[in-house]
Amino acid sequence: MAFHDSIRAVLWQDNGLKLLDQRRLPAEETYLELTDVESVAQAIRDMVVRGAPAIGITAAYGVVIAAHNRMQQSFEHWRQTIEADLTLLAESRPTAVNLFWALKRMREAITTVGDNPLQDLLSTAKQIHEDDLAANQQMGQAGAALIHAGSGVLTHCNTGSLATGGYGTALGVIRSAFAAGKLQQVYADETRPWLQGARLTAWELTQDNIPVTLIADSAAAALMQQGRVQWVIVGADRITANGDVANKIGTYSLAVNARHHGVKFMVVAPTSTVDMELNSGKDIPIEQRDPNEVLMLNGQPISPAGAQAWNPAFDVTPAELVDVIVTERGVVEAPTHDKVVAMMKNAQ
Amino acid sequence: MAFHDSIRAVLWQDNGLKLLDQRRLPAEETYLELTDVESVAQAIRDMVVRGAPAIGITAAYGVVIAAHNRMQQSFEHWRQTIEADLTLLAESRPTAVNLFWALKRMREAITTVGDNPLQDLLSTAKQIHEDDLAANQQMGQAGAALIHAGSGVLTHCNTGSLATGGYGTALGVIRSAFAAGKLQQVYADETRPWLQGARLTAWELTQDNIPVTLIADSAAAALMQQGRVQWVIVGADRITANGDVANKIGTYSLAVNARHHGVKFMVVAPTSTVDMELNSGKDIPIEQRDPNEVLMLNGQPISPAGAQAWNPAFDVTPAELVDVIVTERGVVEAPTHDKVVAMMKNAQ
Repeated sequence: MAFHDSIRAVLWQDNGLKLLDQRRLPAEETYLELTDVESVAQAIRDMVVRGAPAIGITAAYGVVIAAHNRMQQSFEHWRQTIEADLTLLAESRPTAVNLFWALKRMREAITTVGDNPLQDLLSTAKQIHEDDLAANQQMGQAGAALIHAGSGVLTHCNTGSLATGGYGTALGVIRSAFAAGKLQQVYADETRPWLQGARLTAWELTQDNIPVTLIADSAAAALMQQGRVQWVIVGADRITANGDVANKIGTYSLAVNARHHGVKFMVVAPTSTVDMELNSGKDIPIEQRDPNEVLMLNGQPISPAGAQAWNPAFDVTPAELVDVIVTERGVVEAPTHDKVVAMMKNAQ
Repeated sequence: MAFHDSIRAVLWQDNGLKLLDQRRLPAEETYLELTDVESVAQAIRDMVVRGAPAIGITAAYGVVIAAHNRMQQSFEHWRQTIEADLTLLAESRPTAVNLFWALKRMREAITTVGDNPLQDLLSTAKQIHEDDLAANQQMGQAGAALIHAGSGVLTHCNTGSLATGGYGTALGVIRSAFAAGKLQQVYADETRPWLQGARLTAWELTQDNIPVTLIADSAAAALMQQGRVQWVIVGADRITANGDVANKIGTYSLAVNARHHGVKFMVVAPTSTVDMELNSGKDIPIEQRDPNEVLMLNGQPISPAGAQAWNPAFDVTPAELVDVIVTERGVVEAPTHDKVVAMMKNAQ
């Protein structure tokens, strides 16, 4: 089974950063070229690029761009002046911890660069990107190994090449399981309000010739009631030390329904998504986005003037509803604090 | 607290049937005039009118129109020729039992009409309409009485004036509870794919100056997790003798989540929605609608070519997840077959 998987959300090309504009998919495949850190932060905020690992990778390249521009201003002071750029990037989105993880790694690189600092920073950013791709392929194998042949799977949001360095987390597991001939049916939640499932996941899977059936998010329970899926497989934006999982709004509802129906619930994320500094999901900052994401669609109102909307971008699934967390360092079943600590100590 | 509630989805006016075209709300308020039974069946199928009680009322008036036209063709044979029209109306939508209930009442009227058959049929149709409105007001009071002051409520789909003869079932309870000063917050699921919550419920509530906050359907679990709602209040398209409830897709997911969070789950429906001929929700025919309702929005694709969709219009919530059923004949807590039978024997 050959995979095209040539989709790349984030590219470093001709010495510059290009982002596939995910707001325009699937209608248009357009890359934006970004040459200053303000544009990079804006692109993250506006969801030109989204998905926790892809946000981290983008931020890493953003630091390279920032360093280049600050060195142009003053080679002597770039290590001071870049601080404002690191802050700007850190403030672009609050929930996905990969952003802060990548900025931390780039900050370490800033303090250790040699005679060719720009080249060294670029190497670090590229390493972050390549490590993510490699982690995804490892997780794909490890996750697929858990799935029995003939299974139906349901996924939420987009966790594929578009959300990562390539291949995908949850969607990487689905790619690997499909390649191994294990999947009878792949269902994708459309994932309101931003429609990542309908617009992005369905686009990636149809490009790979993996048949996909979209459902309205609220149909997931009926799907489980009818025995059509054996696994719910999702990514994560932040996993706390106790195994709680922040992920796209709607994930928690799937976890509650999966447990009610005896459907297994798998979370797939690289260790860059694990935040060992937080002991519980209750401490994760949850981004509230513009109510107009719910009230309007494609710039057209779908609700009357005067209606309000509550639009949290993420929710938190407690560890006790998670059957398994798959990272590139191993598989954690029925996650607890001790098991997550042990997994993080594994060599990659 | 004054209610405008002047909205009427179904009108008999100037000796003809007018339907508020709900496909165009909230952008446009347009009434369609229907003068033949084919158009009435088509309007039900295309969801010009929707909502179980409103479908029943529309079908009743549709029989009056059919009788008028058949009498014009041949007064001698109208009782025979109208049979095809009754069949056509019965085939317009499969799940809401109110349609079949109303057609049964109109068929009885056909066999008992006097010297002025058209006038008698119209009286029966109007009685069905008025009875529904009266039932809604009774249910509004009975349901509101169960709610404690300061509660947050979540509703799904549209169950208001637009879905009924007027006032509403679940939304009637919300209207009554709001009028009694009991509601701190009203949340409405947007209700994909047809957006009845965003387009219709929000429109009705803003017209009545009842503040409403829309959520993406998948955010309901997070809402409950945060303790923002104490009740989920929904309507029904069919209730079987054991208390199982077919309702808009997504209702079942809400019921599972409500039970998980200790949130109460109320179903509000007139007895015309109760199907004593079916012993279990498993026997209810569930309408599958056009996949394009999921794959497209406002005529624009929101998914790539090649993607499929699974689009059941309804799901079934088992009685054990229902805390209370409210009908015009009484309140049934923790419904069972015996309790539903006893309730149906109550005088109205």
